[in-house]
Amino acid sequence: MNSEPRANRIAALFGIRYPIVSGGMVWCSGWRLAAAVSEAGGLGLIGSGSMTPDLLREQIHKCRAATDRPFGVNVPLVYRHAAGIMQVIVEERVPVVFTSAGSPRTWTARLHDAGCRVAHVVSSSKFALKCAEAGVDAVVAEGFEAGGHNGREETSTMVLVPQVRAAVDLPLLAAGGIATGEGMLAAFALGAEGVQMGTRFALTRESSASEEFKRLCTRLEEGDTMLALKKLSPTRLVRNGFYRLVAAAEARDASAEELLELIGTGRTRRGIFEGDTEEGELEIGQIVSLIRDLPSAGEVVQQTVSRYEEARARLRSL
Amino acid sequence: MNSEPRANRIAALFGIRYPIVSGGMVWCSGWRLAAAVSEAGGLGLIGSGSMTPDLLREQIHKCRAATDRPFGVNVPLVYRHAAGIMQVIVEERVPVVFTSAGSPRTWTARLHDAGCRVAHVVSSSKFALKCAEAGVDAVVAEGFEAGGHNGREETSTMVLVPQVRAAVDLPLLAAGGIATGEGMLAAFALGAEGVQMGTRFALTRESSASEEFKRLCTRLEEGDTMLALKKLSPTRLVRNGFYRLVAAAEARDASAEELLELIGTGRTRRGIFEGDTEEGELEIGQIVSLIRDLPSAGEVVQQTVSRYEEARARLRSL
Repeated sequence: MNSEPRANRIAALFGIRYPIVSGGMVWCSGWRLAAAVSEAGGLGLIGSGSMTPDLLREQIHKCRAATDRPFGVNVPLVYRHAAGIMQVIVEERVPVVFTSAGSPRTWTARLHDAGCRVAHVVSSSKFALKCAEAGVDAVVAEGFEAGGHNGREETSTMVLVPQVRAAVDLPLLAAGGIATGEGMLAAFALGAEGVQMGTRFALTRESSASEEFKRLCTRLEEGDTMLALKKLSPTRLVRNGFYRLVAAAEARDASAEELLELIGTGRTRRGIFEGDTEEGELEIGQIVSLIRDLPSAGEVVQQTVSRYEEARARLRSL
Repeated sequence: MNSEPRANRIAALFGIRYPIVSGGMVWCSGWRLAAAVSEAGGLGLIGSGSMTPDLLREQIHKCRAATDRPFGVNVPLVYRHAAGIMQVIVEERVPVVFTSAGSPRTWTARLHDAGCRVAHVVSSSKFALKCAEAGVDAVVAEGFEAGGHNGREETSTMVLVPQVRAAVDLPLLAAGGIATGEGMLAAFALGAEGVQMGTRFALTRESSASEEFKRLCTRLEEGDTMLALKKLSPTRLVRNGFYRLVAAAEARDASAEELLELIGTGRTRRGIFEGDTEEGELEIGQIVSLIRDLPSAGEVVQQTVSRYEEARARLRSL
């Protein structure tokens, strides 16, 4: 009953079967993960935030060779290669672009001219309103639970989604703390029409993260990630050796410059991609404590859908 | 369809119509609020955390005079009057007790002997397991969004509820970030069987908070509350003048003793009850940014139920 997927605005907008998007995560979201998610009926994103423009072009070609379904690229607008990345996206006519960490005004019109659908990630309803003004096609409301970069307001997904829903009429995806069909259903109850899942897809076979990182993550418990680096850009990190260095520096009120020096370069690559789980910077969401397995991305999509339906069937009248 | 309220374990356990509980909030949850919530079909809690045992006894008598429906008392177990409070609860045969901030082992058996139903508030699945071992009747999973005292793990409701659901079979209430029927439905999607709402009931006509506090709260926006006092007991506060003093002290790594001295005594009374919204300590949940009105508690219960049903009817198959 009521099974008209085209009635879902996110699915219709991106031309996909299920309104499930894999986050564009540095060192996790290469073409393999993106293609697997899209093949399974979701929308796979290539995370360009750790790529040169040339590498992104190669990734797009490989993704297209692996699936003829729509896929997307995530672009953190503060990334030093952002302009070159956008050039490649326009030239390659990538169907969907998710932008984050910057103003949606900068690129939306040019991406629309190139035929791209544009979604922008926000952590407040104030920024959602700016997205509406900038003419983006969809907005992602990403809560405090999310891994990696995060909003200063620390607004959780449970609070943020209804707030953004009330502020704008745009098609709305929820992100942060969602890794299951039950979480997806909860997000829909709050007014979302789709979900972006990062942590869940980072911990799949097709994720390009190291086995060391993946295995560590499946053993993390509640409280094992924490929001840090609030003087720079608040970032959710695993509480490993690197985190403890950061926390100690922050406890003595270290300046932004001192923190930048402490981090150095290549820390996320070292942690997530190369598997140095103690000295590397490990970005993962709070929902990691619920994840104990490393399935394929296609299994994640299928299980999310089936558990959404099961959870929906369990909801009773009061 | 499917409208069998008795199938809900929380409603059955407490003998109420709707599995909606008003939090036992200091300076807000007197007999007026508790009786109004219980009269409307929910479970009203008297917050004993700011009362002497004698005052609590008077409040219980007034609550019983105002409603013949079940009600409860919330007891923070670290409160200096906790033993005297429990004595009154046992003597008065209060039907339901919600305990928090302490071990559920200490009082559960004695409360059961006196015929009380016991729920305990937790911020992690580890503590939920301790509740199960201690024989409590229900558990409240309260997330990072909640006002006032909060868990050290900073686990949000979206993450905590499924985690506690997976850990224990006990009847489960969700708290933190829930102020609407949509939020209640989201919590149920995650596995909860009832909700405890604090902020929403603090901002009702029957709440004993000052008008100044209530009016300020209906103007707060996203990011206007923040988790502070992490060296003592993490507490979600409004970012007013008092908060800025605390934040400045914490930025210079002030000790727990310095923070205690800064707070002094009577700060929450001054802020919430007496209405000094600048110098007082104002505890309220993150969901406050969604609340713009001051209805009656009965209207809150009714609207939560009707919006739950409407939101449930909107959920579609994928």
